[in-house]
Amino acid sequence: MPQSSDYFNIPLRNLAIGNRNDFRQPGAVKAAVAEFISTLIFVFAGSGSGLAYNKLTRDGHASPAGLVSAAIAYGFALFVAVAVSANISGGHVNPAVTFGLFVGGNISLVRAISYIIAQLLGSVVACLLLALSAGTWAIPAFGLTGISVWSAFVFEIVMTFGLVYTVYATAADPKKGEIGIIAPLAIGLIVGANILAGGPFTGAAMNPAVAFGPALVSFTWTYHWIYWAGPLIGGGLAGVVYEVFFISHSHEQVHGHGDDY
Amino acid sequence: MPQSSDYFNIPLRNLAIGNRNDFRQPGAVKAAVAEFISTLIFVFAGSGSGLAYNKLTRDGHASPAGLVSAAIAYGFALFVAVAVSANISGGHVNPAVTFGLFVGGNISLVRAISYIIAQLLGSVVACLLLALSAGTWAIPAFGLTGISVWSAFVFEIVMTFGLVYTVYATAADPKKGEIGIIAPLAIGLIVGANILAGGPFTGAAMNPAVAFGPALVSFTWTYHWIYWAGPLIGGGLAGVVYEVFFISHSHEQVHGHGDDY
Amino acid sequence: MPQSSDYFNIPLRNLAIGNRNDFRQPGAVKAAVAEFISTLIFVFAGSGSGLAYNKLTRDGHASPAGLVSAAIAYGFALFVAVAVSANISGGHVNPAVTFGLFVGGNISLVRAISYIIAQLLGSVVACLLLALSAGTWAIPAFGLTGISVWSAFVFEIVMTFGLVYTVYATAADPKKGEIGIIAPLAIGLIVGANILAGGPFTGAAMNPAVAFGPALVSFTWTYHWIYWAGPLIGGGLAGVVYEVFFISHSHEQVHGHGDDY
Amino acid sequence: MPQSSDYFNIPLRNLAIGNRNDFRQPGAVKAAVAEFISTLIFVFAGSGSGLAYNKLTRDGHASPAGLVSAAIAYGFALFVAVAVSANISGGHVNPAVTFGLFVGGNISLVRAISYIIAQLLGSVVACLLLALSAGTWAIPAFGLTGISVWSAFVFEIVMTFGLVYTVYATAADPKKGEIGIIAPLAIGLIVGANILAGGPFTGAAMNPAVAFGPALVSFTWTYHWIYWAGPLIGGGLAGVVYEVFFISHSHEQVHGHGDDY
Repeated sequence: MPQSSDYFNIPLRNLAIGNRNDFRQPGAVKAAVAEFISTLIFVFAGSGSGLAYNKLTRDGHASPAGLVSAAIAYGFALFVAVAVSANISGGHVNPAVTFGLFVGGNISLVRAISYIIAQLLGSVVACLLLALSAGTWAIPAFGLTGISVWSAFVFEIVMTFGLVYTVYATAADPKKGEIGIIAPLAIGLIVGANILAGGPFTGAAMNPAVAFGPALVSFTWTYHWIYWAGPLIGGGLAGVVYEVFFISHSHEQVHGHGDDY
Repeated sequence: MPQSSDYFNIPLRNLAIGNRNDFRQPGAVKAAVAEFISTLIFVFAGSGSGLAYNKLTRDGHASPAGLVSAAIAYGFALFVAVAVSANISGGHVNPAVTFGLFVGGNISLVRAISYIIAQLLGSVVACLLLALSAGTWAIPAFGLTGISVWSAFVFEIVMTFGLVYTVYATAADPKKGEIGIIAPLAIGLIVGANILAGGPFTGAAMNPAVAFGPALVSFTWTYHWIYWAGPLIGGGLAGVVYEVFFISHSHEQVHGHGDDY
Repeated sequence: MPQSSDYFNIPLRNLAIGNRNDFRQPGAVKAAVAEFISTLIFVFAGSGSGLAYNKLTRDGHASPAGLVSAAIAYGFALFVAVAVSANISGGHVNPAVTFGLFVGGNISLVRAISYIIAQLLGSVVACLLLALSAGTWAIPAFGLTGISVWSAFVFEIVMTFGLVYTVYATAADPKKGEIGIIAPLAIGLIVGANILAGGPFTGAAMNPAVAFGPALVSFTWTYHWIYWAGPLIGGGLAGVVYEVFFISHSHEQVHGHGDDY
Repeated sequence: MPQSSDYFNIPLRNLAIGNRNDFRQPGAVKAAVAEFISTLIFVFAGSGSGLAYNKLTRDGHASPAGLVSAAIAYGFALFVAVAVSANISGGHVNPAVTFGLFVGGNISLVRAISYIIAQLLGSVVACLLLALSAGTWAIPAFGLTGISVWSAFVFEIVMTFGLVYTVYATAADPKKGEIGIIAPLAIGLIVGANILAGGPFTGAAMNPAVAFGPALVSFTWTYHWIYWAGPLIGGGLAGVVYEVFFISHSHEQVHGHGDDY
């Protein structure tokens, strides 16, 4: 895939951080710090909403009101996390997003790794701060509830496909100079909506970093691999599908019908 | 209605996909794929929220918290589904919207049919993936709860009128070069608000595709025709009303008071 | 207040419908039709959410989940109602907003009356359609719950002050050519937020039309005057306060520090 | 920190109210009035939602549905409060935001003090109006629920850090002429999300003014200092971190890679 073509860089210029810039340290450090802080803010509110639910219900069963609470906490906080880092790092806040953009050729390997490390660190620090704030190590970890491993796997793949497809379709708009309101809002709200579907089955992580922090701090690793394999496959698939159907086709059309895309 | 007039195409240029382009395959295929994927993402979250509710409550009765959950899941996911396809296919995600735009002369018959097929397929695939993920064929189908057929019919007509009127009024703005944030957000949130009103009576589909997937996968066809007839009549009515009151009148004014609309 | 000054018309040009245009019928009719349809859509979802709650709980007591449902239904639907009529009629959807703009000198008496009639008709038709859909005349009317008349009066005044102040501050922005996303969203969400505060006390109408439709269809007129007097006083007060503190002061500054506002 | 440098003022020109203007009374008075009214609107809805919950549940225990109600009331109302004052005062509505911007050198001491006084007055008047409306002095005050003072302290610091970081990252965008939709929405929704995490522990004030009004009107001062010290430390920290990592670095780059930031 022609990473260096001028056209190619245009539609994804908000997300793409081209090879040219990878080793210019200040920008790379800034971007990693932005990913770290954004993921910290996001996971603090999201995992914190689980802790709060457990406190209010004395560790009671999940309920529709609790699910709405989780959906709003993760959805709104992800909107904010993407919005605050969009113009610095591209606002990934999720290893599956970073991987999906890497698969489509929109971010270099070195930078992708630095992002993923920053995201994981942000999630771990968020969970440590939560543990310190709430006085408990029992940060709720993600896990399966009454479904098979393979069902959970499909759930996380489909939901993360939707999320990363949304990232491609909204953050990659070729006509804007910067990421506006629609990308962070769509990214946050698809996560909120998917939690209302997948929450009672897998927890609906759609994000390895979101699962990693609570797993480490509560030291609960059962089926943890699902929260890596599912989102990475779903995110990678979204990258391939979007590139094949929408970006490559546009490429061809560009020469014939310049203003059609 | 003068489909080919220059003026006419302007206010609806974001939604309209003119005859000229209908048989240029790449754009048409891209648009159908976008409708397919958007409807899949939308129905997966929406129908999934019904499954999740049934799981959390062990198939308990509907409740206000469950209604809020459904409204948010469908509303947020529809916002995302419209946003991600707006600049590719116009973001219909609903046969009633496609029909309403067809009635107003803003989409050709061939393209309308291709959209509706893509939307129905997207809904069916979403429900199959849900069935696979959750390990059950019991995807909750739409149905009437304690009201007569004709009451349900009126409910779906009025609610879909509001939805398609919103599509006309926001996505058809003549002053913008592309669909911005307001159209997808208004379209998503009117569906969310209407679910809070009509949900306990008809399920508040406002969309034949949304009803078709669960009906097929769970093979439940009782009163299924209401979810076609109601939304198509409501959507068609909105198209006629908007054209008569706002677009035709504007047309007349354009010559006299060009910058008034 | 100098209605005809050029400066004055600029900051409110989106809301203001100047005298000059009052008797040009097509625009005035279009605007009244837009107000009628917007109010119909808004009240159908809002009052419908009350009906839905009563159905789900078999006319049970109000609860926090029901309050959230009402706040979201009215808030989201008002956002949509304002968004779809903003560029046609200014998106008032509320006699208290129309009155507040009239008090500030931003709409003529004739047009204000035509708007208010259209809003009341829209609300009544919405409630009739709801009655037809749900098979009951018992559309929930607004009323006081455990507070005195004067407390309720203060509640409606303060909440409507916040609403109309928001209309002035967001829809009257002097730098935009048309009402964007921020005005309808702020207007919808302040109503949603205020319902979460005032709902269990007065129902939190903040809008005589919202109270009038259910009162007429259910023929319940107890304390109905509060839903006229409170919102009109609160809305008028907001108009006066905003004009005095922000628009008049700006006027003075315009000559000295043109780009400061 | 070079307050007077031209570059420095650019990225924060929407928030910064430079020394030059401090004593030009009209602007300063207008800004203080805007902060007063915005805080009044915000606290009326937020504290009112607590009163409403207590009324609906007859002072029952906190619950997930009540937490969602509080998150939406505070989150939506803060969005509105920031939106309506953004272009007049910068939309702080919070002493911790004002302090965080002061620490970063973006507002003068005199103006910061005038803002904080206006915010506190707005909160007190909101609570008095609530007391008058609801006929009770028992406006719910913020307090700790089952955690230590130091845990609460950390909670408020981390949550307010996230809030003020969001203010810096969204309202301080160097490319826009005025604060758009993204800043008020992100500011409102991070508060909503954080309430879902911290609400059952500290009440999640993140704002000394929000805690001060209810404390004064209900005359409940237990641990009140936490709601000053925590938010001011968190907000100040956000100012320092954002300046060090993002604004100073940008400064260096500006000369070498002008269009990179």
